[in-house]
Amino acid sequence: LRYILYYWPGIQGRGEFVRLALEEAGAEYVDIVYEPEEKGGGEQAIMAFLEGEDVARPPFAPPFLKAGRQVIGQTANILLFLGARHGLAPRDAAGRLWVNQLQLTIADLVAEAHDTHHPVGSSLYYEDQKKEAKRKAKDFRANRIPKFLGYFERVIERNGARTPWMVGTKLTYADLSMAQVIAGLRYAFPATTRNALRSRPRLRRLHDAVFARPRIARYVKSGRRIAFNNDGIFRHYPELGD
Amino acid sequence: LRYILYYWPGIQGRGEFVRLALEEAGAEYVDIVYEPEEKGGGEQAIMAFLEGEDVARPPFAPPFLKAGRQVIGQTANILLFLGARHGLAPRDAAGRLWVNQLQLTIADLVAEAHDTHHPVGSSLYYEDQKKEAKRKAKDFRANRIPKFLGYFERVIERNGARTPWMVGTKLTYADLSMAQVIAGLRYAFPATTRNALRSRPRLRRLHDAVFARPRIARYVKSGRRIAFNNDGIFRHYPELGD
Repeated sequence: LRYILYYWPGIQGRGEFVRLALEEAGAEYVDIVYEPEEKGGGEQAIMAFLEGEDVARPPFAPPFLKAGRQVIGQTANILLFLGARHGLAPRDAAGRLWVNQLQLTIADLVAEAHDTHHPVGSSLYYEDQKKEAKRKAKDFRANRIPKFLGYFERVIERNGARTPWMVGTKLTYADLSMAQVIAGLRYAFPATTRNALRSRPRLRRLHDAVFARPRIARYVKSGRRIAFNNDGIFRHYPELGD
Repeated sequence: LRYILYYWPGIQGRGEFVRLALEEAGAEYVDIVYEPEEKGGGEQAIMAFLEGEDVARPPFAPPFLKAGRQVIGQTANILLFLGARHGLAPRDAAGRLWVNQLQLTIADLVAEAHDTHHPVGSSLYYEDQKKEAKRKAKDFRANRIPKFLGYFERVIERNGARTPWMVGTKLTYADLSMAQVIAGLRYAFPATTRNALRSRPRLRRLHDAVFARPRIARYVKSGRRIAFNNDGIFRHYPELGD
């Protein structure tokens, strides 16, 4: 089975959480937006699902994943599906719910990170909500980053394993997402994140362990991983603080 | 098995999505915050899980649900668990993922509704972010309510069933949550919502069908359902528009 990933071009965005799981699983997939239009690729492939009138179960927004005839949307939902299929989640039902719970908490953090530059609305330019963004980013740096990172550090600690992971002794998709969030926060707010991670050695270790996984390291080296930039979720605007 | 629900007092909040599922399922549960402190109730029962140093899998925030020895957090995750247990979700894996996907999209809408009065930060008073709230609410009313409600109307239409539901022919927990969101939006932005629902008869029908379910109707009548108010997620501030 070859998966087809539908996500906007030019940014890591929420699609990257799915890509990291696919890469770690060694799954075969196509990033449809980078395929030529004459082969059914490009943004119009995404729009066909968002606007098509015969899509039985339409997604609200990218990312979504085509797996055979199934179309699965919402990042955490895609990962729930992939995790069970590719050994990136525990086998027991309680463990799977716990990983899903962690992923949803990561999703909350990601949404707040996005809103630091778009507190008023995603349909408006950043330039038109700069003043509001300054206040939002200040609160995010002072209160939210420490609160979320403190929480996830505790999760690893309570797990009590010798491995670097949040759940049990094996890597899960929530670990991949956590590492990605740490990378994103370091890009967006380097000083704040460095500071917050100083007292959170388990999170630093988790991040390094994820990016040292052979398949993840190969993916990063391949040049296929888009660099962080100021069109994505994690943006670095000096005026929003460091 | 008697469930224990942990959620803040005095508001419907995110706890209400869990309550509606428990009520529709006819499940036995205790809303711990309303139990006397000397019987282990009150807010300290919640804090014990959030701050306790021996909680193996600590939740980040309420609501969370205790089911035997399992502690399950994140609204959509609790509903994923309850849906499977109480026949409030399809039996097939693809159907369950689809309901979870809808629930996560509802959660996105709920988060945006919350942010209309707290665009800068949840830790600040509304009064201290009123100016930002006005801009956020304007965008929410003009762009987001129509976009989300248009989407969910389409979902019911594409389902093509004679029943009022979003998935297949049976009620799911996503239908309960959708009805709750419609009730909330009507409270917060009555004119905008009335307007948006004028051309969305399927959503109006879904709302009415949910609140006509015998167990839901009994719950609403019981006086146990807290009224909407300006401490919750859906708030009515005239200055944010109607």
